[in-house]
Amino acid sequence: MTTRNRRIVLASRPDGAVTPDNFRFETVDVPEPAEGQVLVRVHYLSLDPYMRGRMNDGRSYANPQALDETMVGGTVGEVIASRDPGFAVGDKVVGNLGWQEYGVADAKILQKVDDSRVPLSAFLGPAGMPGVTAWYGYRKIIAPKAGETVVVSAASGAVGSVVGQLAKADGMRAVGIAGGPEKCDYVVRELGFDACVDYKAAQTPKELARLIKEATPDGVDGYFENVGGDILNTVLGRLNTFARVAVCGLISDYNNKPGEAAKSAIQNPVMFLVARFRMEGFIVSDHLDIWPEAVRELTGLLAEGRLKYRESIAEGLDATPEAFIGLLAGRNFGKQLVRLV
Amino acid sequence: MTTRNRRIVLASRPDGAVTPDNFRFETVDVPEPAEGQVLVRVHYLSLDPYMRGRMNDGRSYANPQALDETMVGGTVGEVIASRDPGFAVGDKVVGNLGWQEYGVADAKILQKVDDSRVPLSAFLGPAGMPGVTAWYGYRKIIAPKAGETVVVSAASGAVGSVVGQLAKADGMRAVGIAGGPEKCDYVVRELGFDACVDYKAAQTPKELARLIKEATPDGVDGYFENVGGDILNTVLGRLNTFARVAVCGLISDYNNKPGEAAKSAIQNPVMFLVARFRMEGFIVSDHLDIWPEAVRELTGLLAEGRLKYRESIAEGLDATPEAFIGLLAGRNFGKQLVRLV
Repeated sequence: MTTRNRRIVLASRPDGAVTPDNFRFETVDVPEPAEGQVLVRVHYLSLDPYMRGRMNDGRSYANPQALDETMVGGTVGEVIASRDPGFAVGDKVVGNLGWQEYGVADAKILQKVDDSRVPLSAFLGPAGMPGVTAWYGYRKIIAPKAGETVVVSAASGAVGSVVGQLAKADGMRAVGIAGGPEKCDYVVRELGFDACVDYKAAQTPKELARLIKEATPDGVDGYFENVGGDILNTVLGRLNTFARVAVCGLISDYNNKPGEAAKSAIQNPVMFLVARFRMEGFIVSDHLDIWPEAVRELTGLLAEGRLKYRESIAEGLDATPEAFIGLLAGRNFGKQLVRLV
Repeated sequence: MTTRNRRIVLASRPDGAVTPDNFRFETVDVPEPAEGQVLVRVHYLSLDPYMRGRMNDGRSYANPQALDETMVGGTVGEVIASRDPGFAVGDKVVGNLGWQEYGVADAKILQKVDDSRVPLSAFLGPAGMPGVTAWYGYRKIIAPKAGETVVVSAASGAVGSVVGQLAKADGMRAVGIAGGPEKCDYVVRELGFDACVDYKAAQTPKELARLIKEATPDGVDGYFENVGGDILNTVLGRLNTFARVAVCGLISDYNNKPGEAAKSAIQNPVMFLVARFRMEGFIVSDHLDIWPEAVRELTGLLAEGRLKYRESIAEGLDATPEAFIGLLAGRNFGKQLVRLV
């Protein structure tokens, strides 16, 4: 076994868009687990939009990522040394070991997973954080009633794809919004959504409004927001009375500079009274209590082949910064992972 | 008894601000009640901001007021002729007879009230629609937990004054926002709020933010919005994690012309994720089921002297248009009524 560990640290905070030189590669010793700790060889890293928020200083929904520290992030891997009775060498675990090849963690913050029915990488996707995020916003905030229309943006992504398939499994009308004909095709033909709006096909906000209206002839009862910008304002204009809007992400505003106007600024707040809708922001890590229930439903659907997903896999640690920048620009297709083993 | 009835009809829709010539006075015969109907002599008219929305054509949260028809609105009065066994001459009733001296209504949409413990006009105020509106937004949307801070705009008004007093009765920190030292003085000294921010004392949005911050040292957990504009955006910036925002009115945007940018546009929607707050628009008429419970609590507090209120009373039907325009401009102090008897 090697005794050297490669890792990526935050070298500087982005000034607007993220660039490769915000990151620095380092080679250090593989850490030794202390009593109650476990050493994990990382098989897959998860890259997620929330990481962009943490790269900024100042108040956000998570503490800022420290400079010169290993970039934080979700991982799956295999235990290669254990000083905790709950874990044995060879156990597969989900954890937050960050952008590195090997990591040590306290046993109590690792979660053993059973990859006999579901591939290991799914625990970073539809059976992991993105899937549970979709489940929470869909089940607990949108909570649709029979016959309702549920719309989700970034519909081909790791979270959005699960939202729409949960809606279809419940018999709702599921409408996706995605960028480009390839993604929209996937959303309708492979994932089984009723319709998908290609927002890149609209040249103007008015055209976008027409496309969304055509896809939602009975209006919108539940909206799961991952993106923001014009899409948000357009969907708000289609809301039915007592609609619910779950705000999971506003990726179009994560690169704003201080003082820059938000692209997702809500232009017509009087809609709150016209449609008496409810809009709620959430972060799944506030709701760890629902995790087991959500994972049970999601792995069940996965094992039955009723929950499809796609992965966009970058190969090797060196490819990580570029894959992350691509994710923020919407260039990935499906859950963005980096394979290390 | 006179056989002539004076009334005010909508003569034209406003182009921006409401003007007196949007209204026309008419004198017609007092109507005869049909079987199942009741004839009421109106004692008080209620003037409310929602009427402004109904004066516009197009989609709003209520159907538009028809041209050349009697202006719609809440009233209290006395039965002077009845063709329904449930009502006798002399009964006091709340109804929606509109801007006129006499009106006929189906018995089933009138509500008998007991004015032995509480004055008749209170059933248009703290024991009527404004009071129940405050109760719903406070109890059902904000639903505060011990030790929380509740902020309400238009705090000296018919709705806002009840919100803050309910919060104080529950032991919360209640902070009002109102225009001018006289109103703020009333909110703190007479109504017993912990603090009141005079938004007119702020020359800039930054100064407004400073004043609101000083009044909410522990942040804001519940916000009851009547006004909108800079005040809304400033309070959103003070929200604590899991805060609730009840949107009851956005009076600063009711006079907008088509295409005009909303003063209440939500400038920093990423706050939905930073604070994971919930924002919900509501209209009390959607929730008639809670009316008896709300009126019971409100009349109890009123009879015990624990719920104070103030009325701004215009005298006679002729004074109605000017009183309504004054209400929209914030010139009233307390619930705006017109006394006809």
